[in-house]
Amino acid sequence: MSKFYYGIDIGGTTVKIGLFDEEGSMLEKWEIDTRKEDSGSHILPDIAESIDKKNKEKGIEMSSVAGIGMGVPGPVTEDGRVLKCVNLGWGILAVADEVRKLTGVDNVKVGNDANVAALGEQWKGGGRGFDSIVMVTLGTGVGGGIVINGKILTGSNGAGGEIGHLTVNPSETRKCGCGKKGCLEQYSSATGITRMSAELLEESDEPSSLRDYDVPITGLQLFKAYKENDKLACEIVEKFSSYLGLGLSHVATVVDPQAFVIGGGVSKNGQIVADVIKEQYEKNVGLFALKGKEFRLAELGNDAGMYGAVKMVID
Amino acid sequence: MSKFYYGIDIGGTTVKIGLFDEEGSMLEKWEIDTRKEDSGSHILPDIAESIDKKNKEKGIEMSSVAGIGMGVPGPVTEDGRVLKCVNLGWGILAVADEVRKLTGVDNVKVGNDANVAALGEQWKGGGRGFDSIVMVTLGTGVGGGIVINGKILTGSNGAGGEIGHLTVNPSETRKCGCGKKGCLEQYSSATGITRMSAELLEESDEPSSLRDYDVPITGLQLFKAYKENDKLACEIVEKFSSYLGLGLSHVATVVDPQAFVIGGGVSKNGQIVADVIKEQYEKNVGLFALKGKEFRLAELGNDAGMYGAVKMVID
Repeated sequence: MSKFYYGIDIGGTTVKIGLFDEEGSMLEKWEIDTRKEDSGSHILPDIAESIDKKNKEKGIEMSSVAGIGMGVPGPVTEDGRVLKCVNLGWGILAVADEVRKLTGVDNVKVGNDANVAALGEQWKGGGRGFDSIVMVTLGTGVGGGIVINGKILTGSNGAGGEIGHLTVNPSETRKCGCGKKGCLEQYSSATGITRMSAELLEESDEPSSLRDYDVPITGLQLFKAYKENDKLACEIVEKFSSYLGLGLSHVATVVDPQAFVIGGGVSKNGQIVADVIKEQYEKNVGLFALKGKEFRLAELGNDAGMYGAVKMVID
Repeated sequence: MSKFYYGIDIGGTTVKIGLFDEEGSMLEKWEIDTRKEDSGSHILPDIAESIDKKNKEKGIEMSSVAGIGMGVPGPVTEDGRVLKCVNLGWGILAVADEVRKLTGVDNVKVGNDANVAALGEQWKGGGRGFDSIVMVTLGTGVGGGIVINGKILTGSNGAGGEIGHLTVNPSETRKCGCGKKGCLEQYSSATGITRMSAELLEESDEPSSLRDYDVPITGLQLFKAYKENDKLACEIVEKFSSYLGLGLSHVATVVDPQAFVIGGGVSKNGQIVADVIKEQYEKNVGLFALKGKEFRLAELGNDAGMYGAVKMVID
């Protein structure tokens, strides 16, 4: 009898659900709304119902579902408990236990969404072929996920791989959302690009193609100007990548991965993003064992979380 | 029939060997010389001979030896190969395979000495009761070892936990031994204390009890003056601990351990060392999940490596 797996990525707006076969191939994917009302108490029942419906549609018995993996947007302990998940309205919730009860499936695992996406990229995406990778997600903030020997590094409080909050500029005066000053995500995120661009365009009299755009300046506009050798764009990319290079050197000095996989909106500007980061990274490591790491782009986009969720339960 | 384990810590001068029972209690320990001549080719045969001799003395059959663990002073891959070990004269050497051949014991594991010592402290020393710790060794340099869920984080090139080479001062002009500038061990080691003390005593006219000592100033002298509220000593301890606090915040942001265990010569000045580091650490983390980590002193001293070596093979 064939076995099936469900890989689920719970976001603040939609829940992405994927049906996978026992080889780990995605057969189908769809989305349902994330109903956050009533402290998010409908979210898991809605997912169970959606799985049940899909099973019926496909003629799959629940006993053929060999595992359900999930990523959620918050810290998760190794036994699948969420301590707080503001985006979903959850307080302390034993998510894995709850899903077991709702579906009757025993093999349920839950992870932090950034970590789970990292596992997906390591398994089937930009990190394919490596056992140990660090995924760096350059979006509104800077997210991270660490996979060592094919397993997520969760951390004792679920905060493993929170690399957006590495201090890279101890002399910063502005506060990050975490309460500290000089965090990586204050510079090397879409938000950081927008802010640094606005500041530099204001401070400088230098002509720049960036002045042709309405604010806020996006990563797309910045990297376009950078490729055209625009002087101000080069300065901003230098800042963006030098903080990243420093931050990722910290990560490598701690976990010594084989490769970094760069994802998120900013990475959509292509291999040049990985290349500028690698260049700065290499300047910040001295030990031979840490030199020459691979820098790859993420490949799975929004599907990474579903793939990683399945990988957690398919092993 | 009782089972026995050997835990071995190979250093540049002596090899420490411990005989353990199946509960992980050390029955006996002794040392043999590290014979580095002939590219270190006598080291492993000498160890095998010493084990054989001890077995005969104790009436232990080699078939009762259930495992041999080893720490070596250099990077080691997960399958027990050393890529280069300058201190022992070794080039590439399949240490685990070699020891299997020499002894007939199958269960052989080899790790980097700093990592193995960290595992020993987590198992039976200052990190007892925690699954995930970071060991920080403040000696001539700054060494590190990371244990996650009771397992050593080796790193893809054996450079996991090389925390002495975290960049903590990007504006440093002096080079570290690794070739980079501004590494943690340039400040927060015995060598760093000596250098920073000499510089500050030279620059400043402030009276200080540190002026009563011949150079080089040691950690012992520094912390004695610090406890007496000597102003210059306070300045040096502030520098020493603030770089460590920053560096360990990087480590926590990456692996989120439960506790830090502080060892090495400098830690012999007592709990005050752990306390000043913790104070600075807390200033450098913003995320709630990273606050309030435990800072403990190492307890096993030079025996940590033998304990950790056995822990690798006793599981």
